[in-house]
Amino acid sequence: MDIIDIIEKKKNGEELSKEEIKYFIDKYTNDEITDYQAAALIMAICIQGMTKEEILELTMCMVDSGEKIDFSDIEGKIIDKHSTGGVGDKVTLIAMPIVASLGIPVAKMSGRGLGITGGTIDKLESIPGYNVNIDVDTFKKNVKDIGISLIGQTDNLAPADKKIYALRDAIGCTNSLPLIASSVMSKKIAAGAEGIVLEVTYGSGSFMPNKTRAEEIARMMMMIGKMAKKEVKCVITNMNEPLGKCVGNSLEIIEVINALDGKIQADVYDVVFEVCTQIMIMSGKYSDEIKCRKAIKEKIKNGEAKKKFIELVRTQGGDVSYIENPDKFEKAPIIAPVVADKAGYVEKLNAGKVGKAGVKLGIGRMKKEDPIDHRVGIVFEKKVGDKVKKGDILCYVHGNNPEKTTECVQEIIAAYKMGSKRKEEKVVSKVI
Amino acid sequence: MDIIDIIEKKKNGEELSKEEIKYFIDKYTNDEITDYQAAALIMAICIQGMTKEEILELTMCMVDSGEKIDFSDIEGKIIDKHSTGGVGDKVTLIAMPIVASLGIPVAKMSGRGLGITGGTIDKLESIPGYNVNIDVDTFKKNVKDIGISLIGQTDNLAPADKKIYALRDAIGCTNSLPLIASSVMSKKIAAGAEGIVLEVTYGSGSFMPNKTRAEEIARMMMMIGKMAKKEVKCVITNMNEPLGKCVGNSLEIIEVINALDGKIQADVYDVVFEVCTQIMIMSGKYSDEIKCRKAIKEKIKNGEAKKKFIELVRTQGGDVSYIENPDKFEKAPIIAPVVADKAGYVEKLNAGKVGKAGVKLGIGRMKKEDPIDHRVGIVFEKKVGDKVKKGDILCYVHGNNPEKTTECVQEIIAAYKMGSKRKEEKVVSKVI
Repeated sequence: MDIIDIIEKKKNGEELSKEEIKYFIDKYTNDEITDYQAAALIMAICIQGMTKEEILELTMCMVDSGEKIDFSDIEGKIIDKHSTGGVGDKVTLIAMPIVASLGIPVAKMSGRGLGITGGTIDKLESIPGYNVNIDVDTFKKNVKDIGISLIGQTDNLAPADKKIYALRDAIGCTNSLPLIASSVMSKKIAAGAEGIVLEVTYGSGSFMPNKTRAEEIARMMMMIGKMAKKEVKCVITNMNEPLGKCVGNSLEIIEVINALDGKIQADVYDVVFEVCTQIMIMSGKYSDEIKCRKAIKEKIKNGEAKKKFIELVRTQGGDVSYIENPDKFEKAPIIAPVVADKAGYVEKLNAGKVGKAGVKLGIGRMKKEDPIDHRVGIVFEKKVGDKVKKGDILCYVHGNNPEKTTECVQEIIAAYKMGSKRKEEKVVSKVI
Repeated sequence: MDIIDIIEKKKNGEELSKEEIKYFIDKYTNDEITDYQAAALIMAICIQGMTKEEILELTMCMVDSGEKIDFSDIEGKIIDKHSTGGVGDKVTLIAMPIVASLGIPVAKMSGRGLGITGGTIDKLESIPGYNVNIDVDTFKKNVKDIGISLIGQTDNLAPADKKIYALRDAIGCTNSLPLIASSVMSKKIAAGAEGIVLEVTYGSGSFMPNKTRAEEIARMMMMIGKMAKKEVKCVITNMNEPLGKCVGNSLEIIEVINALDGKIQADVYDVVFEVCTQIMIMSGKYSDEIKCRKAIKEKIKNGEAKKKFIELVRTQGGDVSYIENPDKFEKAPIIAPVVADKAGYVEKLNAGKVGKAGVKLGIGRMKKEDPIDHRVGIVFEKKVGDKVKKGDILCYVHGNNPEKTTECVQEIIAAYKMGSKRKEEKVVSKVI
């Protein structure tokens, strides 16, 4: 077998055999295939696609490329949750403490932000002291002791996926359905959960352009889950506008704290409640959606969800005084208002444009090595459907540098589109 | 501008702008774009293709990436010659001394073999002392003094093409029409010739699968030539079977010497005469094909073509005693006959299979860094159209190692296909 023959086969649109996929994954993980050969093959896959059999094989080879976590010694069914990525998507950080407060064990590994989409791990790191890099044994111990742990992906979890993921990002191949599906599912299968609830996003602030594509990838991931004997549910959500009130790392943590205090944005509420409900039903402890929603509300109202979040932060070394008093989070030095230059209804707030502007501002990274600034971000005052008067403040840009802040303000203005009629889109569009 | 946007554009099948192509070529030449990003873009080009405008821009940017040779101080029109590659293709080494002996200046830079196709430079290096790496001034001086010089491509001639060419070879993208056309034409334009005669090969021993593809690429190169104000003629040749009697570096040099002595194989004769005729007409010194052919025959018969070859070898530091007495060339230690196991006519002799077997034997390289053995090769006794009795010797494999030689014998047997009727294909199929 030869990597050049494999590349040529996919270039010509042919189906790769199991042996060929395994050869590529094994040799690339061991650095026996170069990045440029992998890049060529990945581009060919992007353009020519993959059959179901190829996608499943790719996923399972990536699972087998590293360690597999075993939760059989933890009581209760471990349900994992994942989002295919969005701008302002802080659902994990609100939903998982709620779920844990209901006695469902949460053991979740999250990713960093890459491209326009934010990452749970970056957000958590804006809490001083919070350690995202604990070892697997401590991770499992924390789940046993307090029922929740949120950490970064360990180095040896699906290392093949890690290499391919980083490469895809650098070669314009992030939005390929087979590659997204196999990437997500390989990590989730290796992480050992029995059931998986996926937020599958579409729209300008995500990797899927529309609902049809999101459904396609959702079904692809469910197909992989079925073959790997994992229960999978998909919550398909609209990411045409940023989710919630804030985009930015510490700003989103503050929004999470407010949400756990009961002050939750309508769009975030919809996704959080749907995701929690699906996890609760999958856990086997609940069977009725109405009862689920009642239980969630109760846990927010009585403060137990927030208490669980504080427990999580404390156990992972974070300074809980920041959670108890969010004013402690360091503010960005510049806070610039973005003012409406005409009246009307907000018709669109392009999440893709907001995401790009945010990356330049320092929220996210263009390259893996880029530094981020936890303080910077955007706080929205007006979103889609809101009525706006000329001179109203649309949002605030929190920046660390006058030029970058001004540039961001310009780009955010261009992300807003005004109309004469009130329009609104539902965030949760479907559960499959 | 951003390389990821450029890659995504081509991935989606869109046309790149002049600025985008220039950005890629400039930054890749200066190592500001990584090999893996270039690999992804090249694969996307391979699958999605390029418009005429894109191909022309790519070619001219590669020309501009390095030095351009100026022959304006040399009398006579400089005509360059190039082959898109074949197995056993020694046409340059026979045709160019003939042309030079006719008073048409020859200043030709050639390539090394890569993949299954051989390289003129590797063949020349089997003559002890022959220096292929002389500088441009000496190259031009030799052309002035003796009317001919054959050297390797200088490092700074179309360096962008050099990088892309090596990368294409490693990522299974050798057979893309826009990439072949722009690669050939960028080198020829930078090398400063006024007219270019191209041998465009097709069949198993070349990069083009059939005559239609060869014509397509020929027209593409003629289109580039026209826009760059260079006269271009294409001799389209069939490379389904190896060209001539020998494949291998010193073995081919011996065949060249024999040809210049008048003992020339029929298929080599056809291509050499056609290429010489086209160069002679392009030079402006001849207008009549019959007169051209007569003049070529004359120069072989009176020994002037061979004398020119000896002059060339001497001027470039080669030991001319090898040319005067080809028995001096060191033989490979093993010479294994390949015997026919049944009678019939040779219906096929698959040049692709011969080429692959030859690379493993040590004629050529799988990777750029691989060493080659100038002694090894294959000498054919029976070719397509020849009648064969059981037990006849089909060819001899010259090897340096028993295992490799045996393996090559097996593969060569598989390259022969016998039939019951005499079949022949013309080698020169068309001139456009």
